[in-house]
Amino acid sequence: MVEHSGPDVKFVNKYCPSSSSASSSSSSSSASSAREMKILATLRGSLSRKYPQKNGEVLSAQYGINLLLVGLALMLALAYQGPTVTEETVLSFLSTLMLVQLLWMICYVVRLERKRNAPPERDANAATSWIRGGLTLLALLSLITDAFRVGNYVGYQECVSPVLGVYPVIHALHTVSQVHFLWFHVKDVIKRYETFERFGVIHAVFTNLLIWSNGVMTEAEHALNDHKRRLSAVGFYNFTVGEGNQPDCNCTTSACSMFSSSLYYLCPFNIEYHILVSVLLFVMWKNVGRNLDQRTNQKPASSSKFINGSGDRPLLMLGPALGLLALASAITVLVIYIIHVEESLEARHAAISMFYWFEIVILACMSVAGAVGLIIYRLEDWPTDTTPNPARTLDSKLLLGSSIGSWLVCWCSVIATGGAANSPIYRWANLAYAILLVLEKCVQNLFVIESLYRRRREHEDRPGLRANHNSILSPNQGNEKIFAVYDGIINHAYESPEKQCENEKQTFDGNNGTVLRPRELVVPETPNGQRQVLKNIAIFLFMCNISLWILPAFGCRPQFDNGLEEQSFGFPIWSTVLNFALPMSLFYRMHSVAVLFEVFRKI
Amino acid sequence: MVEHSGPDVKFVNKYCPSSSSASSSSSSSSASSAREMKILATLRGSLSRKYPQKNGEVLSAQYGINLLLVGLALMLALAYQGPTVTEETVLSFLSTLMLVQLLWMICYVVRLERKRNAPPERDANAATSWIRGGLTLLALLSLITDAFRVGNYVGYQECVSPVLGVYPVIHALHTVSQVHFLWFHVKDVIKRYETFERFGVIHAVFTNLLIWSNGVMTEAEHALNDHKRRLSAVGFYNFTVGEGNQPDCNCTTSACSMFSSSLYYLCPFNIEYHILVSVLLFVMWKNVGRNLDQRTNQKPASSSKFINGSGDRPLLMLGPALGLLALASAITVLVIYIIHVEESLEARHAAISMFYWFEIVILACMSVAGAVGLIIYRLEDWPTDTTPNPARTLDSKLLLGSSIGSWLVCWCSVIATGGAANSPIYRWANLAYAILLVLEKCVQNLFVIESLYRRRREHEDRPGLRANHNSILSPNQGNEKIFAVYDGIINHAYESPEKQCENEKQTFDGNNGTVLRPRELVVPETPNGQRQVLKNIAIFLFMCNISLWILPAFGCRPQFDNGLEEQSFGFPIWSTVLNFALPMSLFYRMHSVAVLFEVFRKI
Repeated sequence: MVEHSGPDVKFVNKYCPSSSSASSSSSSSSASSAREMKILATLRGSLSRKYPQKNGEVLSAQYGINLLLVGLALMLALAYQGPTVTEETVLSFLSTLMLVQLLWMICYVVRLERKRNAPPERDANAATSWIRGGLTLLALLSLITDAFRVGNYVGYQECVSPVLGVYPVIHALHTVSQVHFLWFHVKDVIKRYETFERFGVIHAVFTNLLIWSNGVMTEAEHALNDHKRRLSAVGFYNFTVGEGNQPDCNCTTSACSMFSSSLYYLCPFNIEYHILVSVLLFVMWKNVGRNLDQRTNQKPASSSKFINGSGDRPLLMLGPALGLLALASAITVLVIYIIHVEESLEARHAAISMFYWFEIVILACMSVAGAVGLIIYRLEDWPTDTTPNPARTLDSKLLLGSSIGSWLVCWCSVIATGGAANSPIYRWANLAYAILLVLEKCVQNLFVIESLYRRRREHEDRPGLRANHNSILSPNQGNEKIFAVYDGIINHAYESPEKQCENEKQTFDGNNGTVLRPRELVVPETPNGQRQVLKNIAIFLFMCNISLWILPAFGCRPQFDNGLEEQSFGFPIWSTVLNFALPMSLFYRMHSVAVLFEVFRKI
Repeated sequence: MVEHSGPDVKFVNKYCPSSSSASSSSSSSSASSAREMKILATLRGSLSRKYPQKNGEVLSAQYGINLLLVGLALMLALAYQGPTVTEETVLSFLSTLMLVQLLWMICYVVRLERKRNAPPERDANAATSWIRGGLTLLALLSLITDAFRVGNYVGYQECVSPVLGVYPVIHALHTVSQVHFLWFHVKDVIKRYETFERFGVIHAVFTNLLIWSNGVMTEAEHALNDHKRRLSAVGFYNFTVGEGNQPDCNCTTSACSMFSSSLYYLCPFNIEYHILVSVLLFVMWKNVGRNLDQRTNQKPASSSKFINGSGDRPLLMLGPALGLLALASAITVLVIYIIHVEESLEARHAAISMFYWFEIVILACMSVAGAVGLIIYRLEDWPTDTTPNPARTLDSKLLLGSSIGSWLVCWCSVIATGGAANSPIYRWANLAYAILLVLEKCVQNLFVIESLYRRRREHEDRPGLRANHNSILSPNQGNEKIFAVYDGIINHAYESPEKQCENEKQTFDGNNGTVLRPRELVVPETPNGQRQVLKNIAIFLFMCNISLWILPAFGCRPQFDNGLEEQSFGFPIWSTVLNFALPMSLFYRMHSVAVLFEVFRKI
């Protein structure tokens, strides 16, 4: 921590020649030459890894933000369809960024291979194998998207820029190597060459974020075209077929229409893939130069009660069953909605009504489930875990932050339905839906964040426990930390009484009575029933969030179709609000799914 | 920290009747009745202040965000000028919020008065008296605004809603009591009735943020009207006089035009007042329930060298002199710009050119100054201060966050100038300006954040030093903390050699040699010259930031007038970008001013 030594001591001596504290007797001239050497050394040091951590962070954050803003500016210019920026410009920019990231990842892996004898520390909380598994699935769908894009390009290759063919190839290459990198290196806590690595990681974060933004923009265009087509279907608008972004020539292969309609359904997965990667890499960036606390950085023991405990199984059926029901109904609603919203005006209104009533039911159930979970937590009075954990902090902030989008839409709906001049059949359903959505997100955020901040109960890794007992005895730790360790890790409550007693005795004997036994060693247990209820709630919310992701991701967006908000806010403002809020809302649902799965495993 | 005791121990006994570790012999029935009592107690507790801290935070944050979003939705509906929402609705909503805040502040103060014997702890870093002084100045200007608004209402009272008269009165009342509250309570660290106070503070934060948003929207309207008037002046647009937001009847007093033109110039101060209050209250919210570290929470000793040290004065002239020059030129440029931009097309182009060249010069100087400061810091190799300090963390995050707005505008300008079809005389000046602005903000952010995270040098409060020496000997602190204390607080470097030696001997004698003297006790000193340079840089940047705030705040916004970006992005997108970015940019400058002043006092 403190790195200056020689020259500084000498300086004090210069001012205080009679001081008896130091032993050196350097003259003024040698002190000044030492000073010069120090200046040189510092300047050299500042260019390598001695650059202070805080500055490295700020500098790389600024680089990343500006990268994002350049990309956003390009995309805004593209959205205007002005003469300055074409789609090729944006795609070339993204390709360049991806190539730079590829290069950096190769450098990183090669460097690590060279120093194989000193592997980096790893943050156990960073990304579980489940998350990485889900990511791999999304990446596979993303690769299929790339293949379809290449196929599409081959069909139209006479009249479109070659960039449209090169981009998916680079993207596929990028996807494969990035997934490989994430599987093996996302948990790394980088401490060597900090400044260089920091820039590399933040570059990767913002490259993925930019590709996400690009996907979101494409989706917004899809949504706008859908909106126009639907309006023209019910006779409000004159939509010509060429208005969608079609090339000027005919397709030379027979599969083009298949490709473009498949792309429409694959795009949401590609979008989620990139935002998820950004989040994981951001945690890696937060971990650069971090000092891990060995005691809190243990691989979390997965609670295997679901598979082993035979007494638990029947109770765990309710959550998944209701969740599956919600999922099935959501898919049904989606199909009916998409078919009916383009028919007549009455069918359109009926479809919108159906959507709102379905959402009201599902949101009410979710709110109740979340509230029950919160009440159970209140009954338990379990202490919270305050150990540093960048992944968890980020998870909670992202949940809160990404709620903002749909909350804004909800309050706009409330104002619009409250003050609407005409009254379609879904007016009050829309109002109820908006209020329930606000409520549901509030309750769910509270439930998830409280679950994340609960102490994890470790009941299987005894060796870890031993290690803790040893580390407690080291002299340079504060008392409060000792209690924190005692109080979070040890819980025998859901082992069988016999086994528990046995273990306790063992602990006593093995340590020859040297281990302190404060009263805090024994934390309150959760009755098995309550734990089962919590698990059911988590899995129910998990599946409901998947359902609520599917609906808007695949074109069920009544906010565009119902017309109420458009009357109060006008199309330009309202479509801007939706284009800002819907991607956030989709991200919120996907992120909730990931976090609720963690919660399910942890309870 | 750990609050569960009795019942939990009993539970373990129930499962482990043969365990020899505990002494109680309770039966199963008494355990279950204890359990029931515990449930009741917990439920009661959860409704009062035993509610867990993290949940209280999340809940109140969600309340605040939703408050903001309701307000924003109302303002968006107002911006569309649709039938749903009128200006009265928005003003009534804001008035209600202010009244609720008033009520809460009264409750808070009354409660505190009752418990006068146990005053709350205070966070020394929260808001210096300088900041509060500046705030009071802004509040005074805000009160003048209110008086003018009332005057304006009296003139038009026949044809406008009474809400327009009531609102400024409530606002004035709110301003007076809020400033009083901030002077005496903003440093409070609330630990009693946490949940209630948390909601009160967050309500106050978001009320001010909403009034800020409302002010920003009014300003955006001003800017749009200016833009139209200027376009009509040079013949591009047909602007009728009534298009500005004028009431339908004639003014009954003679002062109406004076009032409305004064309001135009007072509005920016009102806006800055509310955002500054939000920031201060947000720090208060972050402090609710916080455990202060007594050692790091000492009142920072102000460095009084500026007034006392006679040898320093001549060198401190350069920064202020250059800064004043920048300020004077900025005002000149502002006046010339506003006059010329409405004359002919050539005068308009000349005015825009002049603006860009002025900014290029000032930004280049600022970048160089910031870079010199950073190099001096690199030469020093001073350790960073990592003690928790919500005010500082917020300052750095706000600086970075509010840079985003103008960076986005800059990158849009770069793209627009790079790909522009026509080439007005200011094309390349605009490009250079945009790139320099990005660079300047990067360098300034780095300089400010590094200055904030430097260890403060305490050289006057010897008693504080003694206290530290004592606290070092207490057994429950880690070794690294001991060194941290030694290593940050003590620096004798810029006392005179004789006095320093005397002090050192005193320290030795007074403590009878019991104090450890590790080598880290002597930290590297900053030569007086370097310190002077840093002080000059801080004051120069301080005044430059004031200049760069004045220009856009009072109508010098060439981004609207130059037409280049509008060609590439179209008016709807570009005006949306500007309406989002300009308020952030103004806030960035004002916040930099506040933070640079802190830096100046600290160096």
